[in-house]
Amino acid sequence: MSWQASIEISRDSGESLTAQVQRTIKREISDGVLHPGTRLPSTRRLADDLDVSRSVVVEAYGQLVAEGYLEAVQGSGTRVVRHLSAAPAPVVPTLLDEGQVPSVRWDLRSGTVNVAHFPYREWLGCGQRVLRTVRQGDLGYPPPSGVPAMREEVARYLGRVRGVRAAPGQVMVVSGFAHGLGLLCAALPSLGMTTLAMEDPGLPRQRAFVREAGMRTVPVPVDEDGIDVQALARTGARAVFVTPFHQFPTGVTLSPERREALVRWARDVDGYVIEDDYDGDFWFDRRARPLALQRLAPERVVYAGTSSKSLVPALRLGWLVVPRDLQPVLERLRSQRDLGSDCLTQLTFAELLRSGSFDRHLRRLRARYATRRKTLADAVRQFLPEARLDGPAAGLHAYVRLPRHTDEAALVAGALRRSVLVRGGREFCARPDGARPALVVGYTALHRSGLAEALRAVGAAHAELPGARRYPGPVRAAARSA
Amino acid sequence: MSWQASIEISRDSGESLTAQVQRTIKREISDGVLHPGTRLPSTRRLADDLDVSRSVVVEAYGQLVAEGYLEAVQGSGTRVVRHLSAAPAPVVPTLLDEGQVPSVRWDLRSGTVNVAHFPYREWLGCGQRVLRTVRQGDLGYPPPSGVPAMREEVARYLGRVRGVRAAPGQVMVVSGFAHGLGLLCAALPSLGMTTLAMEDPGLPRQRAFVREAGMRTVPVPVDEDGIDVQALARTGARAVFVTPFHQFPTGVTLSPERREALVRWARDVDGYVIEDDYDGDFWFDRRARPLALQRLAPERVVYAGTSSKSLVPALRLGWLVVPRDLQPVLERLRSQRDLGSDCLTQLTFAELLRSGSFDRHLRRLRARYATRRKTLADAVRQFLPEARLDGPAAGLHAYVRLPRHTDEAALVAGALRRSVLVRGGREFCARPDGARPALVVGYTALHRSGLAEALRAVGAAHAELPGARRYPGPVRAAARSA
Repeated sequence: MSWQASIEISRDSGESLTAQVQRTIKREISDGVLHPGTRLPSTRRLADDLDVSRSVVVEAYGQLVAEGYLEAVQGSGTRVVRHLSAAPAPVVPTLLDEGQVPSVRWDLRSGTVNVAHFPYREWLGCGQRVLRTVRQGDLGYPPPSGVPAMREEVARYLGRVRGVRAAPGQVMVVSGFAHGLGLLCAALPSLGMTTLAMEDPGLPRQRAFVREAGMRTVPVPVDEDGIDVQALARTGARAVFVTPFHQFPTGVTLSPERREALVRWARDVDGYVIEDDYDGDFWFDRRARPLALQRLAPERVVYAGTSSKSLVPALRLGWLVVPRDLQPVLERLRSQRDLGSDCLTQLTFAELLRSGSFDRHLRRLRARYATRRKTLADAVRQFLPEARLDGPAAGLHAYVRLPRHTDEAALVAGALRRSVLVRGGREFCARPDGARPALVVGYTALHRSGLAEALRAVGAAHAELPGARRYPGPVRAAARSA
Repeated sequence: MSWQASIEISRDSGESLTAQVQRTIKREISDGVLHPGTRLPSTRRLADDLDVSRSVVVEAYGQLVAEGYLEAVQGSGTRVVRHLSAAPAPVVPTLLDEGQVPSVRWDLRSGTVNVAHFPYREWLGCGQRVLRTVRQGDLGYPPPSGVPAMREEVARYLGRVRGVRAAPGQVMVVSGFAHGLGLLCAALPSLGMTTLAMEDPGLPRQRAFVREAGMRTVPVPVDEDGIDVQALARTGARAVFVTPFHQFPTGVTLSPERREALVRWARDVDGYVIEDDYDGDFWFDRRARPLALQRLAPERVVYAGTSSKSLVPALRLGWLVVPRDLQPVLERLRSQRDLGSDCLTQLTFAELLRSGSFDRHLRRLRARYATRRKTLADAVRQFLPEARLDGPAAGLHAYVRLPRHTDEAALVAGALRRSVLVRGGREFCARPDGARPALVVGYTALHRSGLAEALRAVGAAHAELPGARRYPGPVRAAARSA
């Protein structure tokens, strides 16, 4: 099939191989090259053609099925859906939507959010109260940085729960964290900061986003204390993106010494730290919950938070706490792009915070996820005894470090043959050479029994690996074709 | 007061004088130069200092009071509000919020939306149905261009009501029209179109927005048939921004001949037309309602619509219908800036459309505004007999053309002395020289009696003008200071 020739795989673009394959297939569909009903090559054949591991193609197909572009047909592989007049439905694949991800029974990917936990009743109640009491003035054009009630409640919440130092006027409401990051990547170059240092490992699509949004990126290694500040200093960058609460994906917390060093660095280079507190609402560890880095240097740290993890991504509701010096340039930039975010959603979220419903919701959610995290830890001990969970009990994913000799790619492929979709640690590395093998396991989508079953399957796949196998090992022929 | 020196007024920046004054005062407040409680100079004194008409300062103060930055104090002028720890409340000044605009009893400005007409009960009902029936998949990360239900319902609505030719996949949901315009202004230069031709007169803040968003602008005159396509062709631009349904502010409808010519032009220059159908939901005229320009050339016209006029600006919900050739670049650009708009709001709006509530709401709204428009026409005949209303009965504002000899600025100032805030036509001109005097009157915020009273006051102000007075005439000393 000629369209395969148009898939160009780049191994250093920062975008994951899976994402590249997905994007290209989507483009070919929307360009009308791949017509409705067209059958795609088997995952094995396409993987051979592209010289990538089969799991890359399986995941790409699975995602495109979940998004409604492709459909799996019993006995005849995968094809473009027949009716694509409307845009395909967005789906966060969770086991709650069983059958939408073909051949995959357990989805252990991080980044999927369990939308079943959305507090429907509370949200609706707050929405009702807002509409009953909203002042006329709140329904006109909003201040682009957010409605006052929202900024006040967020500032109060962040101060109380994360130790963030923020006046309400420093809170900028954004349409999801990516929106805020896009603004920052457009603003910083105008202040002479054209390179954003980023933790390695990290999220490949975030690295790609930053580059698309206008900054160069440079990777900085992460160890058990978090980002290596000396290595950061050697890059010459004056801006850095970090996840100090619970590093993504390694799960480590930035140590107190490193925090001090990082803030010192920012002052020395007259630069900024972007603190992505993406899962800061979730701490289950016995140790004291670390506060936001921002409180150490409110004039140097842009704090970023989101409702995507605590509520749902669909709200597209996030917030930045902006150092005063950065405010004018960021506000000006925003006023060139949009005139603010949905006010009713902001007011409803503010009411959720004000009324205490959000706290109660989070308590329930934390209890649930703490149990799952413990189930995962037990299952890892039982089924992958040589592996260990790195970092504190926190967030919505765990980093399972594998024994040095483990062939990570073969393990991921073996797990997939047993219907478990899980990502290897190398997928998140900007410089994969020498990276220790690991699995990045999201545990919010599965119930406890599912988690245990999934880990049992991963353990079985691990047991099948030849002891001395080296990365990248050959992938076994699969039992069935996707 | 030293801060006044920091107000730099530019007469050719494209930003209105009022907006410049407002922006500067806001900045001085947020920079801590103007402290809470600080008294501002009288409007007359500041107008003298800045060499602008007093109405400019009065309007700027009024707007800042409405937004919560300033407060009017009985007997002691205007001062910075005492408690500004939170961001000030946004207010669309309407007479429903009486007292928020000091010294102004009747606000005849266009662009204010009467938020009292928001269909609270229907919106809430649709929101409830959405939350009860939402599929898990709809709460994850949305397709950036919009949730399928929204795109389908909007495509259906636009086809049915405006004659737009659009597959759902061509609809891009945006966070308000400005967001869409910002994306277009970033996308078109990448296709070699660096200049956007814009109707003259038009909205100054839109011209400024386009320039800030990355394109040059060039004005093109408008006559009784709409934009002058021959003049457009002479500019050499390959992209143009038009309001063919009801030109802003002159109110004329683009004639059938001009429509054909405009589309021909776009094909000839291999360019694009941006059709801003900002008030296309409102037609009260006996003549047939003009359909969207887009239907003549779906491959050349970007159609843009909004819920700001039919519902409220606070939703920040709009849509583009994008020619297929433009889709990839626009979608790519958007993916560099954000990951989509609030899905619950999109789903709720889709449900409002699907259920027929939106149609019923619009019928009520149209009946109400048709009556007000008629009241205005009657009042103009009675109190400004030499003036005439241009354009069809449509939209949310009317263009009142004044006799040639009228001193527009003096009339606006005179009206303000009689507590009527209204804008002169020249404020909207990129090239004001030779522009015929006019008033741009918004009629959605006032009840019928208010409209009649306001026009009576304008008529009285008009009667006071010396017959041969020339622009710019001296502004009389005001009876009271703001």
